[in-house]
Amino acid sequence: MAVYTDINEIELAYFLKEYDIGDLLSYKGIAEGVENSNYLLHTSTGSYILTLYEKRVNSNDLPFFLGLMRHLAGKGINCPLPVNRKSGSSIGELAGRPAAIVTFLEGMWMRRPTVHHCHALGEAMARMHLAGEDFPMRRRNALSVDGWRPLWDNSKAGADRVEFGLANETEADLAFFEANWPSHLPSGVIHADLFPDNVFFLGNRLSGLIDFYFACTDLLAYDVAVCLNAWCFEKDHSFNLTKGAALLRGYTSVRSLSDDEAASLPILARGSALRFMLTRLYDWLNTPEGSLVVKKDPMEYIRRMRFHRQIKSPEEYGLALEGART
Amino acid sequence: MAVYTDINEIELAYFLKEYDIGDLLSYKGIAEGVENSNYLLHTSTGSYILTLYEKRVNSNDLPFFLGLMRHLAGKGINCPLPVNRKSGSSIGELAGRPAAIVTFLEGMWMRRPTVHHCHALGEAMARMHLAGEDFPMRRRNALSVDGWRPLWDNSKAGADRVEFGLANETEADLAFFEANWPSHLPSGVIHADLFPDNVFFLGNRLSGLIDFYFACTDLLAYDVAVCLNAWCFEKDHSFNLTKGAALLRGYTSVRSLSDDEAASLPILARGSALRFMLTRLYDWLNTPEGSLVVKKDPMEYIRRMRFHRQIKSPEEYGLALEGART
Repeated sequence: MAVYTDINEIELAYFLKEYDIGDLLSYKGIAEGVENSNYLLHTSTGSYILTLYEKRVNSNDLPFFLGLMRHLAGKGINCPLPVNRKSGSSIGELAGRPAAIVTFLEGMWMRRPTVHHCHALGEAMARMHLAGEDFPMRRRNALSVDGWRPLWDNSKAGADRVEFGLANETEADLAFFEANWPSHLPSGVIHADLFPDNVFFLGNRLSGLIDFYFACTDLLAYDVAVCLNAWCFEKDHSFNLTKGAALLRGYTSVRSLSDDEAASLPILARGSALRFMLTRLYDWLNTPEGSLVVKKDPMEYIRRMRFHRQIKSPEEYGLALEGART
Repeated sequence: MAVYTDINEIELAYFLKEYDIGDLLSYKGIAEGVENSNYLLHTSTGSYILTLYEKRVNSNDLPFFLGLMRHLAGKGINCPLPVNRKSGSSIGELAGRPAAIVTFLEGMWMRRPTVHHCHALGEAMARMHLAGEDFPMRRRNALSVDGWRPLWDNSKAGADRVEFGLANETEADLAFFEANWPSHLPSGVIHADLFPDNVFFLGNRLSGLIDFYFACTDLLAYDVAVCLNAWCFEKDHSFNLTKGAALLRGYTSVRSLSDDEAASLPILARGSALRFMLTRLYDWLNTPEGSLVVKKDPMEYIRRMRFHRQIKSPEEYGLALEGART
């Protein structure tokens, strides 16, 4: 739930003078996205999303994010297309914040994704990975293994309040990842936050991917691992093997996973569970009561970390056996 | 800022089966309205607002509110038109709440209304009063003078924490209103909450009135008094006589105010300032920290109460002198 910054009609009208998107008919603050303020605009030429980038987004990264959306859209990936200002840039300033307008994608995100949706997500993610291959810009993943310890240092004092023993458990995991994190796998553009609320469907058809504000250059298989965590666990915290198999089958139907990538899935899935646990834990401990940010329970991802620690092979996520994967 | 109730795509699809509004393309929780949860729907036939009525709205009142919108829209007033379900009713149930769909009105509400907007608001309010004359349903104004004391009884213990002396000041005002509130003035359908966020404009043209969930049968001049409070004070709490004059000139260009109505404006304005002070004070004292409801400062309306107490004649609000009012 967002909309942190209210904007008035006068500053908005002034901002829109730099765009060629017709006459403004309405703007509504929408309750989606947790990092930025988002408005749904209706103009005489259609619907758009106006985003005001709040402090968690580094404005130096905006050319990467918006350039990537433009690149992917140009390759036929259904994602928001940034609208250029008359100056040619896609980034302006509104209410003291960097701001951009992108095209509106119709579609709904699935509060209860099914096996079918997991398969479609896998396919679309693989297509995005292929479409990103020749994107020339690079952005380090600030939330990969070398970003975890600074995050942890700001939370560890409170970790045992969430669950006694969590501090030691996390320290051991961090040390393990720092020593064993794979570095030799294929790398490229990843979304890095492809949770169900960032994937739209119209009926059973995947209609688009949104919210590229964690996108970066990192291991492609890490994106797959994030999605195993985000799409394939049930409310009771159990892993749904059928959904895992569908997601991986969808992915590998477009881009095959190498043996190394497949073998690394357990550590990548366990690492990405730690990554989301750490940001949730940080927010849990540091978000003041009364804030509009809805805090997500870090325990959900602590359970996932423990699950992945038991996994011995990628087949346990539903990956088809090697002979069948060609 | 609202959206209290999240809905999932499955229950929404089921709910929409009872409507004939085309295929659902998207739904976004919007940050408008403070009493209910509102979603902006795009369907293959256009845009709609879906409202889930939260606990502050008495579901027994919904036929009045929705019937009134239908009546006014039928008379050419630009307001949302409730969409009938296949059963013929306009009220269904979604996520355990009464819910309705109305047509979407394009337009923006003016964060900074000008003299021009005040004039247009006056005209539109008077047209609405005339259009409501033959609306057959009635609803008592639960927040008129006889509703104020129960509200006050729940807040008075904390009043002096907001400003020392406020308890005695309010008690005296309440006693004055209970003894002197006018009852002989023309009565009819009033909006009762016609603040700037409920009035849309496209450019300089008033494009619609929304949010009829305080509408009731009460003194027409009380609606005018509410608007003097809501539209004609500046951020520094001063009354803007030019805006008052424009609002009243707009109103009387469509429906004239009788001498009795004009003479009652000061007490009605003072009473309506008390009414908004009381609900704000109640929320201020009783809304838990961390709630998503944004609390509005009651002091703003305490200042207005004091202003209106000094007013001796309606001319001081900008009403044209009697000879000129014909």
